[in-house]
Amino acid sequence: MEPTPNKQVIFLKTLDIGYPVVGEHIAVQESSIDLNAPIEQDEFILKTLTISIDPFIRNPMKTPSTKKSAAPIAYYSIGSPIYGFTASRVIRSRNTKFNEGDIVTGVTYLEEYTLISPKTNPFASWLTVRNEIKESGFPLSYHLSVMGMPGFTAHAGLFEIGKPKKGETLFVSAASGAVGQLVGQIAKLQGLYTIGSAGTDEKVAYLKEIGFDAAFNYKTTPDIAEKLAELAPQGIDIYFDNVGGEILEAALESANRFARFICCGMISIYNTENQVGIRNVFQIVGKHITMEGFMVQDYGHLEGAFIKEMKQWLNEGKIKYRETIVEGFDQTAQAILDVQYGKNFGKQLVKVADF
Amino acid sequence: MEPTPNKQVIFLKTLDIGYPVVGEHIAVQESSIDLNAPIEQDEFILKTLTISIDPFIRNPMKTPSTKKSAAPIAYYSIGSPIYGFTASRVIRSRNTKFNEGDIVTGVTYLEEYTLISPKTNPFASWLTVRNEIKESGFPLSYHLSVMGMPGFTAHAGLFEIGKPKKGETLFVSAASGAVGQLVGQIAKLQGLYTIGSAGTDEKVAYLKEIGFDAAFNYKTTPDIAEKLAELAPQGIDIYFDNVGGEILEAALESANRFARFICCGMISIYNTENQVGIRNVFQIVGKHITMEGFMVQDYGHLEGAFIKEMKQWLNEGKIKYRETIVEGFDQTAQAILDVQYGKNFGKQLVKVADF
Repeated sequence: MEPTPNKQVIFLKTLDIGYPVVGEHIAVQESSIDLNAPIEQDEFILKTLTISIDPFIRNPMKTPSTKKSAAPIAYYSIGSPIYGFTASRVIRSRNTKFNEGDIVTGVTYLEEYTLISPKTNPFASWLTVRNEIKESGFPLSYHLSVMGMPGFTAHAGLFEIGKPKKGETLFVSAASGAVGQLVGQIAKLQGLYTIGSAGTDEKVAYLKEIGFDAAFNYKTTPDIAEKLAELAPQGIDIYFDNVGGEILEAALESANRFARFICCGMISIYNTENQVGIRNVFQIVGKHITMEGFMVQDYGHLEGAFIKEMKQWLNEGKIKYRETIVEGFDQTAQAILDVQYGKNFGKQLVKVADF
Repeated sequence: MEPTPNKQVIFLKTLDIGYPVVGEHIAVQESSIDLNAPIEQDEFILKTLTISIDPFIRNPMKTPSTKKSAAPIAYYSIGSPIYGFTASRVIRSRNTKFNEGDIVTGVTYLEEYTLISPKTNPFASWLTVRNEIKESGFPLSYHLSVMGMPGFTAHAGLFEIGKPKKGETLFVSAASGAVGQLVGQIAKLQGLYTIGSAGTDEKVAYLKEIGFDAAFNYKTTPDIAEKLAELAPQGIDIYFDNVGGEILEAALESANRFARFICCGMISIYNTENQVGIRNVFQIVGKHITMEGFMVQDYGHLEGAFIKEMKQWLNEGKIKYRETIVEGFDQTAQAILDVQYGKNFGKQLVKVADF
């Protein structure tokens, strides 16, 4: 049999500071795979259907830390594919848990076809058969976005760390993004006053459309701390941080006593050269602020309950969700860059093959 | 009757950045008080015996913030006395709860004699009759230090925020200070591995003497992050932060997943001109670090249990405690400065009058 062409997103070069460049640090390259070659017991082959393009994809491009206390990042290997969240279909299997035709979500190497060897693949344990998706009535992409990892991130971070209480004020940055748009809407459902920041006037308009009480364009706001003080004279009780940097500083200034800061991501510093530090961390002391970071897998035991609740909210029309979906595996590398630059509007995905 | 001379520490001038100067920002000035003049119902007069000199005394010298969300600091008034923790004796009273001869601890204006008008004095509700001190067998100073606010700060911060577990590693900065020396010793009693930093070799030697597993002089350490990695290759589970700045950054680098950072104070930035920010706050995300600030009054309900436990530890010889006591009210202003510069060794106090 002829081998089948298999496009992959290959990691070319480590990059600590600055924005990655397609062709220099990552690139879509064509390999091939013999889909009919013998596979080992427990192995299976997935055909990638949709790829979730997340901000974190930038971080494993950095020089691996050798410290025992380093964050548990699986760094990319030069010359090998990078990884990310995908939805795919099992097209061959010698694994009793993954059968031909099953729909699977989880983390895989980013390639059109991927052979999973459970014994050696570091992400195999994150793969889940999700055949209920076939009859869910929602687009496949939703299972990687609003009902997937970004949705769960918003939900777990807001409830487990934010502990929202009716009448409180929440601020979220990157508020029209994959996570942010849900944080605001879920908080609103809990009776909070919600404020969001985004990087274009179009995104700000969208935030008001989906129910944020206030929103502003941080790129055209000369003094973010002043703007927050104006929009939230009552102070901020919860800040859901997706960006870090200057906006985090402003949120610390506006925080009330016993405020909770959910540290979800800090995209403002993933690529920047001159990392300005946070100069007002001292606010934490006098105002008894709690800042807590998390990775969504820390709350894995809550995922089932999240999916159930989100499905209900979607069915009742209580949650709206914006995605940007580009078509074709070739678009993957550029889509990764777009997310780093904030060019995406809502959740960025790549449709690779039909459901 | 002749009025009695009454020395006070007077606030002269607001200071946002830089170290306060005696004579320019604060000064000991002599006023007078007629100890026999009529007093109103519920008023009483305290004679100050001992003053606790704490790092926080610097903060109310800053320009008052008008923000609703500002930390609840009672800023000093120009021309009036500053305030602090004191132990004193009631010498006159028309208050049924405070009787002549009672020993009282709490927050008062810093002056030799202080008339308390409960209706208008913002700190009156913090004053407690502590007659058990008379027969406690401990020096009066201990009731302002190891068994007082700094001791309670160490205990409440460590247990309520740090949640120490046997076998974990704790790092504390300003480790020979009023709070730090207790944090290390209490953590050791819980079975933790303890590391401390201090600013002189003499202080470092003291830390080893009182049982710290490791200690270093941060002033002679070229790379603090490297030093921490060397002293704690297993990583840090709890960091008790009294200084902020570069040492906080280093602790973030060495933190393990799920580390707890107790933000107690950040003396490194109380007086500095070029406030360098914390550049690696992102560590909080991937390592699920929790940073939480506090003011000891947030845990007021736990103070009784603390005093009981500390008394037992002291009686059993399980806790050692170092103080620097200067004599005479005139020394107060300089002692305040010494603490800001880190010249004090252990808890700084001023003895004003005999017990």
